[in-house]
Amino acid sequence: MAAKALIPALFFCFLFSISTISHSYRFYPPVKPCKELVFFFHDILYKGYNRDNATAAIVGAPDWGNKTAVASPFNFGDLVVFDDPITLDNNLHSPPVGRAQGMYLYDQQATYSAWLSFSLVFNSTEHKGSLNFAGADPLLNKTRDISVIGGTGDFFMARGIATLSTDAFEGDVYFRLRVDIKLYECWK
Amino acid sequence: MAAKALIPALFFCFLFSISTISHSYRFYPPVKPCKELVFFFHDILYKGYNRDNATAAIVGAPDWGNKTAVASPFNFGDLVVFDDPITLDNNLHSPPVGRAQGMYLYDQQATYSAWLSFSLVFNSTEHKGSLNFAGADPLLNKTRDISVIGGTGDFFMARGIATLSTDAFEGDVYFRLRVDIKLYECWK
Amino acid sequence: MAAKALIPALFFCFLFSISTISHSYRFYPPVKPCKELVFFFHDILYKGYNRDNATAAIVGAPDWGNKTAVASPFNFGDLVVFDDPITLDNNLHSPPVGRAQGMYLYDQQATYSAWLSFSLVFNSTEHKGSLNFAGADPLLNKTRDISVIGGTGDFFMARGIATLSTDAFEGDVYFRLRVDIKLYECWK
Repeated sequence: MAAKALIPALFFCFLFSISTISHSYRFYPPVKPCKELVFFFHDILYKGYNRDNATAAIVGAPDWGNKTAVASPFNFGDLVVFDDPITLDNNLHSPPVGRAQGMYLYDQQATYSAWLSFSLVFNSTEHKGSLNFAGADPLLNKTRDISVIGGTGDFFMARGIATLSTDAFEGDVYFRLRVDIKLYECWK
Repeated sequence: MAAKALIPALFFCFLFSISTISHSYRFYPPVKPCKELVFFFHDILYKGYNRDNATAAIVGAPDWGNKTAVASPFNFGDLVVFDDPITLDNNLHSPPVGRAQGMYLYDQQATYSAWLSFSLVFNSTEHKGSLNFAGADPLLNKTRDISVIGGTGDFFMARGIATLSTDAFEGDVYFRLRVDIKLYECWK
Repeated sequence: MAAKALIPALFFCFLFSISTISHSYRFYPPVKPCKELVFFFHDILYKGYNRDNATAAIVGAPDWGNKTAVASPFNFGDLVVFDDPITLDNNLHSPPVGRAQGMYLYDQQATYSAWLSFSLVFNSTEHKGSLNFAGADPLLNKTRDISVIGGTGDFFMARGIATLSTDAFEGDVYFRLRVDIKLYECWK
């Protein structure tokens, strides 16, 4: 009888429903990101002489530091405000597709380690809106994961992971960061 | 036969279940916010003479700045700690329903642009708990969207978008921000 | 007839499906956390003489403050960068299971109140990855809730609430914070 045949199907349907309800407090890993983006961001630190092309400035420093040179050792205690161009390739002079804006600080006395909190602000034909980030950035690791904690505009309510890698650096004046963004919650 | 009539219904039910599962990695836009709130917050910057009524103070500044005046140009590099009253209307002297606490910084050298990271802390008969925010605030835009990245108490686990608009400002001492909060994830 | 008996069940199944869909814009409180963790973190502030064992340093201060002593009154305006050991019990000398890295600031002039933004970075046999936090910390309250805004590694995409309580303090040089973490979104 057909009704009997429906019973396992219905049971299966229940199971599905219950599993989705239970994820209101326990999600399971998704198969793949709902959106992937790669950017490069370019940071030129103000060192007392390069105000014209600097994109970042030390605004907080420890007692033994100052604002025209990184603190010793390991920049510990320096807090930097930045407004860095972001590009689609690793060329500083490529047309920027947006800006990385916010702050980073150096938090370790025995190695290079940073902590970041910033936004990527897009205003290109491809993307409008912003993505917001926070996380620890242990600089000597080849890759470092931080959190995408929210987004606006095209990235409305987004969440995900950004993987940082240092693409280049020149002394303590310039660094270029590759940012591989994988969004796992997309509302748009 | 009734059992046959159930089959399309059951199929529909499956579709629903599968669509909710798939949103573990891809959400679709909701029809409307689960909660909406409007506040005004009032910021009075310490300028060297007004310590009694100041609610905010510059605590980080670029090499060329100081802590009793905004840096030139465009306040770039100033980092401000604040504890501002929030009110339900645009009157500074209305009874505060909570406090906006955290920091903002100015990150651009060619225009007025800020970046915010703060909490709204409520302790009124209407609301208890807090909402946490982060995002870029390009001040010359009429409205700016930042992320609601979490909440506690009455706002347990909330997420959403806050739309900022400058409601008033008096030189660089006072500004009043209108904050339109739309929550899209409500757990309470 | 069996098919008739299925109708209420099917209706129930629909209800479930619809309730899970509706939570794309309105979640309901979960019964319990998907993960619970307790840590202690130990903060030793640099005061001008203890650079060898300090884990935190004032890097921003108000106009009337400096970087080797907390500002008066109530530390208002001090911004501190830290890299604090975290332990499983309340003993500073227990083997650390990770580090708490980021910043806190004091934002009130009439009482002790802080605001935090930091990461817990784990690198133990038990946990690899990080959790990111933000929120207000009104220090005189017995417990304070802040948001877990994201995570990486073992804590991929996590969200939740951390309840802070001051476990001990010694003047303004040392404090120990108990952190009770409850995650309500677990993707791993």
